[in-house]
Amino acid sequence: MNLPEKIGRQTVLLKNSPCVLASAGVAGKREGNGPLGAEFDRVFEDARMNEDSWEKAESDLQKCAVETAIQKAGLSVNDIDLILAGDLLGQSMGTTFGVRGLDIPFLGLYGACSTMALSLATAALFTDCGAVNKAVAATSSHFCSAEKQFRLPLEYGGQRPPQAQWTATAAGAAVLGRGEGAVKVGCLTYGKICDMGITDANNMGAAMAPAAADTIATHLRETGRAADEYDCIVTGDLGAVGTKLLYELLEKEYSTDIRSNHSDCGLMLYDMNDRDVNSGASGCGCSASIVCTHFMRRLAAGEIKRLLFVGTGALLSQLSPLQGESIPSIAHAVVLEGGKG
Amino acid sequence: MNLPEKIGRQTVLLKNSPCVLASAGVAGKREGNGPLGAEFDRVFEDARMNEDSWEKAESDLQKCAVETAIQKAGLSVNDIDLILAGDLLGQSMGTTFGVRGLDIPFLGLYGACSTMALSLATAALFTDCGAVNKAVAATSSHFCSAEKQFRLPLEYGGQRPPQAQWTATAAGAAVLGRGEGAVKVGCLTYGKICDMGITDANNMGAAMAPAAADTIATHLRETGRAADEYDCIVTGDLGAVGTKLLYELLEKEYSTDIRSNHSDCGLMLYDMNDRDVNSGASGCGCSASIVCTHFMRRLAAGEIKRLLFVGTGALLSQLSPLQGESIPSIAHAVVLEGGKG
Repeated sequence: MNLPEKIGRQTVLLKNSPCVLASAGVAGKREGNGPLGAEFDRVFEDARMNEDSWEKAESDLQKCAVETAIQKAGLSVNDIDLILAGDLLGQSMGTTFGVRGLDIPFLGLYGACSTMALSLATAALFTDCGAVNKAVAATSSHFCSAEKQFRLPLEYGGQRPPQAQWTATAAGAAVLGRGEGAVKVGCLTYGKICDMGITDANNMGAAMAPAAADTIATHLRETGRAADEYDCIVTGDLGAVGTKLLYELLEKEYSTDIRSNHSDCGLMLYDMNDRDVNSGASGCGCSASIVCTHFMRRLAAGEIKRLLFVGTGALLSQLSPLQGESIPSIAHAVVLEGGKG
Repeated sequence: MNLPEKIGRQTVLLKNSPCVLASAGVAGKREGNGPLGAEFDRVFEDARMNEDSWEKAESDLQKCAVETAIQKAGLSVNDIDLILAGDLLGQSMGTTFGVRGLDIPFLGLYGACSTMALSLATAALFTDCGAVNKAVAATSSHFCSAEKQFRLPLEYGGQRPPQAQWTATAAGAAVLGRGEGAVKVGCLTYGKICDMGITDANNMGAAMAPAAADTIATHLRETGRAADEYDCIVTGDLGAVGTKLLYELLEKEYSTDIRSNHSDCGLMLYDMNDRDVNSGASGCGCSASIVCTHFMRRLAAGEIKRLLFVGTGALLSQLSPLQGESIPSIAHAVVLEGGKG
């Protein structure tokens, strides 16, 4: 076993092949009807999950993703040393109430919609350095709990502006261990908070694009890699507005063009002709459910050899836009390597 | 450099002497007037910090603690590779808006009032394994932002029951590095969520006591240490009610008696004859400000050789008690060693 190798202020190379042993993504009905519907481990027709609140429904969704991933890895909860998870809700309610019954030691994270990248990166580091043998990284979001908290009560039926995104009802989880998984976590880059003064809580894409650009540029600089050394650069949930801004920022500020190998999960989850979704999908569950199914599968099959997953999070609170505050954003990056060499 | 050594499911020994290079605690007026008032690096007479919201005041408090700790370590923000922090507010607003301007990579944590132990433990592990050279662990709470979020608007002037605790207006921060600090972080134990069915959001002590007992017992079992091998076992904010329950639980369930070497920060921050504070202090800032000043000073001076800090957190959300939910709780432990041998 070797120590992780710090190769820059924000970037760490992992040296003991921490691997994704299994992963799972679960989703709601709208997500199940989208282009990736067939990839999810479970699709719930009832977004309420038979619960009496949207928050409890989100907890069920996250718990289901975690249990499914553990089961797919051929493990039980007792084999897991630590679960690293969080979500969008105040006090990470979806997570704490979801994880509560699992009897797994718990490290709570907060990264808003960047949480899947943050939890994957951190779980991989813990696994790599031997602090845990097996860990779970997980997150969730739910359209109804998020709208209620960040924007308007659903019952109000407010009209959504074109730059708005649709919070995914979805969850993802990955089980990490050292050794024989088909997908290896090679490297991670923790992001800095960026805030360019966007105050529109309906325009997450614009708020998060500078953070994504900063983290991608930092990652490439600190690793000495060119953008085209990645088969895919996958951002979390920039949507149509944020993706356009990311391309412009990377080109102007960093002379980097990622158009040919970039995908944004926010543009993959729904049929973009569905006018409800406007600028695309968002929420912790968006990238979590897609990375933990679609991309992990393609990595394991060797269709993708090296992928840079850049989770993007808007760190606003339910109060901050009402206080006139702009939206601090962050992006964390993690390198996933597939194809068993 | 050696790898961290995992000695149980939840416990990790650190092998490269991650140290607290400096720490700082800042507090509000009531805390400044308490028995530890003279220990704080700064006491703010105006709990509003000249801001136009309590949340912004809390951000200022946390930022002040972080900047003071970095300054005391003789470092600048550019020397810090990562800040690991969180707080009680929805979406960790005190933290994200406090950290926003610092230009330090940021890993958001959520552990409610256990956050100082969680951030110290995690920052120490990152430092120990070489993922960072220097990290900051920090947290904050503010009476006014917390009451508003978890209980009643201040203006309502609601009467507080005797089991209630007073959320500290305070923040703490510690700078970690490898090598020559006077206080070493030796070991950490991540906790599990415990929920014994307490539904009274005014009775945090009772909700958190089982988690504290579980983590202390697990720590002692996994390290093979007896409770009296610690000069001090310091819990975060159990208050009078929770401390009594902790003693009973440890005695009945684990045949462990910690009465002679236990302190609870919740019973140290205020004059317990002050009837306003009822069962004692609470909030992330309570243990953070006390551990980062009073205990770090005594450790550095060699008055305490080995201390087990057990941060205790009630993982309720602002919504969960209104939905009739009980309070999931957690405790994370970290061993601090003083006296330069």
